[in-house]
Amino acid sequence: MRRALPALLVLMALPAWAAGSGVVGENLLWLALILMSARLFAPLAERIGFPAVLGELLLGVVLGNLALFGFHYFDTVAGDPIIAFMAELGVIVLLLQIGLETRLAELVKVGGRASLVGSFGIVVPFALGAFVVGPWLLPGLERNTYFFLGATLAATSVGITGRVFRDLGKLGMPAARIVLGAAVIDDVLGLVILAVVSSLVQAGQVSVGEVTWIIGKSVLFLAGSIWLGRMIAPHSSRWLARLDAGPSMLFAQVLATGLFLAWLAHAAGLAPIIGAFAAGLLFEPLFLKDFQTPRIVREIEPLLPAGEPGLVDRLRPILTRHAGHQHEHMIEPIGYFFVPVFFVLTGMQVDLRTLADPAVVAVALGITAAAVVGKLAAGVFAGDAGKWIVGWGMVPRGEVGLIFAMVGKQLGVISETMFSVIVIMVILTTLITPPVLTWLLRRGGGA
Amino acid sequence: MRRALPALLVLMALPAWAAGSGVVGENLLWLALILMSARLFAPLAERIGFPAVLGELLLGVVLGNLALFGFHYFDTVAGDPIIAFMAELGVIVLLLQIGLETRLAELVKVGGRASLVGSFGIVVPFALGAFVVGPWLLPGLERNTYFFLGATLAATSVGITGRVFRDLGKLGMPAARIVLGAAVIDDVLGLVILAVVSSLVQAGQVSVGEVTWIIGKSVLFLAGSIWLGRMIAPHSSRWLARLDAGPSMLFAQVLATGLFLAWLAHAAGLAPIIGAFAAGLLFEPLFLKDFQTPRIVREIEPLLPAGEPGLVDRLRPILTRHAGHQHEHMIEPIGYFFVPVFFVLTGMQVDLRTLADPAVVAVALGITAAAVVGKLAAGVFAGDAGKWIVGWGMVPRGEVGLIFAMVGKQLGVISETMFSVIVIMVILTTLITPPVLTWLLRRGGGA
Repeated sequence: MRRALPALLVLMALPAWAAGSGVVGENLLWLALILMSARLFAPLAERIGFPAVLGELLLGVVLGNLALFGFHYFDTVAGDPIIAFMAELGVIVLLLQIGLETRLAELVKVGGRASLVGSFGIVVPFALGAFVVGPWLLPGLERNTYFFLGATLAATSVGITGRVFRDLGKLGMPAARIVLGAAVIDDVLGLVILAVVSSLVQAGQVSVGEVTWIIGKSVLFLAGSIWLGRMIAPHSSRWLARLDAGPSMLFAQVLATGLFLAWLAHAAGLAPIIGAFAAGLLFEPLFLKDFQTPRIVREIEPLLPAGEPGLVDRLRPILTRHAGHQHEHMIEPIGYFFVPVFFVLTGMQVDLRTLADPAVVAVALGITAAAVVGKLAAGVFAGDAGKWIVGWGMVPRGEVGLIFAMVGKQLGVISETMFSVIVIMVILTTLITPPVLTWLLRRGGGA
Repeated sequence: MRRALPALLVLMALPAWAAGSGVVGENLLWLALILMSARLFAPLAERIGFPAVLGELLLGVVLGNLALFGFHYFDTVAGDPIIAFMAELGVIVLLLQIGLETRLAELVKVGGRASLVGSFGIVVPFALGAFVVGPWLLPGLERNTYFFLGATLAATSVGITGRVFRDLGKLGMPAARIVLGAAVIDDVLGLVILAVVSSLVQAGQVSVGEVTWIIGKSVLFLAGSIWLGRMIAPHSSRWLARLDAGPSMLFAQVLATGLFLAWLAHAAGLAPIIGAFAAGLLFEPLFLKDFQTPRIVREIEPLLPAGEPGLVDRLRPILTRHAGHQHEHMIEPIGYFFVPVFFVLTGMQVDLRTLADPAVVAVALGITAAAVVGKLAAGVFAGDAGKWIVGWGMVPRGEVGLIFAMVGKQLGVISETMFSVIVIMVILTTLITPPVLTWLLRRGGGA
């Protein structure tokens, strides 16, 4: 290895040449760094008992705050539109994966409970923030400011929770389905609250027509795309498989549907991830059976001993599961690439300097307590499916809370201090949830 | 299906809502469209005997020229920085895949021939363009303009050819290795020619130091990264597999190395694809054996009849090949997603309006003939490895030729007419090559 030193020194001098290169080149390096460090951090986090997603979030917190130590290389990453788009693709792919691993029939089965949990998960934190904790901890502000604080507390970010359930292989449990269903309902209701509060700030009043329109188009999008999609998917799958039964066609159909419905949701004013989740729900393993080419079975069959007629049928499920032709497996590598970008970037938005003012931190802790209590109260409606797990599953505000706060800042009702308070609340709810949820899920109860 | 009509009509009205949405949303739709239509075009092209890549290129030509029929939706796609970055990622992933499927030892074996083919493939077309066909077909222009035309004819775009060899499963043949080796050499020499010609235009003279510097750093990058990388790769693979032997770690290591070396090549002033190809050469299947977890073997073993001791060993190669844990398989879905974006975007840069002026087309045909003859002449040095295949393999100019022409346009030595001539030459060499190469490869000869 000693002979490698001169070459290493020369290679280390190479970045100096990059000074003149465009941002496209730098993005390649950032993606390489995010991809590799996320893969290194994830098993380290898992070794000390945390889910992989916490490793990626903390990596983001570290990278995003290196500027505090005079290292400014990563300062522009979070604001780069190409990396931001990659992160957006990441959370879209994650929700597509979660949708693929969720059976619609089982989601409908928990529909009633999910609606209750989702509605109360919006109403209780909003009321706590707007009428109780806000006026009490931050007295003397405008009524609209408290309303905006309430709206921020009402937001739910399903990405973090979905990732924890997925990391631990618990997407199949009823509590996971209730959280996913409630998150979809929350996204619609959150949008309504944001529209109502924004209208109050801008026009001083709320138009009933506007609220009805938001609810109407959201329901139309969700019901329409899932109903129509499930009617089309079996036929399109059969038709596409006839054209090309290879894995690339299957992959393209699933991913293109995910991207298309993400765009459609975005166009309808919903979060793109809701569209991606709906796309995942469209495809049942049954529809894709035409793609599960038994090539591996055909190759193995002649090698098996002739005297065992049922052997192939016993091996088939194992072979199919591993042969990588299943839709979940095909989407997986796309997830490995993009999903960490989203969580690292989410972590990078955490500005540790907001923690420097003790007064702000004290208020933020109070607001955070309200944020947690509000969602835990809603979890009660999950009943024996695991009220603590469902409640904690709705706690993280993630990027949704930040988006709400940024709208409020643009409208002039959220001050810099209030924004810092909200950022700390978002940090705490986002970082606390993965370990708590992991502990609850490993304990196997939480009912 | 009749009941679906009202919902369909409503869904068709949805895009109207998108009017206010940002470009991030539109990019989701574009990616979905490119991904799906590329998958539909590819098997159609293959049915009429063409490689899949031609289907993607022609799809791009169609999408890029819809504006001629008054449909302007796709006008801004080609210029969108996010889509352009996706395309760049596409060709990087493609060359990484080609590198992974190429054994370095076999590439070195054809090194002498590849150098001869590469050098003559630069010199002959350059001389033809600068001293013969240029002054003859377009008389009365500046000497520097002819030099730039020559430089454009000297460029080689390995993406198209590599894709054809890959589509037909012929990357293992000696001709493919000669073309790949020659393309790497061409990239370095093409850079030298571009620098020399640019210096001639700007300063009226060429600095020997500058030329030496370009050659020096290129050789240093290629030799250094491959030598150092192959020294590190076996150790890093073993170390990473100990941390996490799952497929995600293997995937991250290979893809992150590809992105890192693409950035390093870019930083060294080379094309990023050269770095991606070098990264692919680093990983031999041997280095990655620690990742090829025999989980499927362990699961199948208890089900097999006890009286057949050697059965597992006979099944193992088939199981490993299909089980999707191999590095080539892991990168594949990333390729399905990004590679079509590159070829569709390349096709979209074809402006069919340049074909409207018969005089320009006539000159362009002459220049194209010189472009083809120049590369076929270099193919002679491939000897019995298949001189026609190697010659045709170097014919496509693709995006490299366009970049050279654009530099000339910026320097003011390439006129609008000359630019159109070059664009037509690039179109023809790019679109002719896939069918010709397919025909030569299927004929199985070409020596």
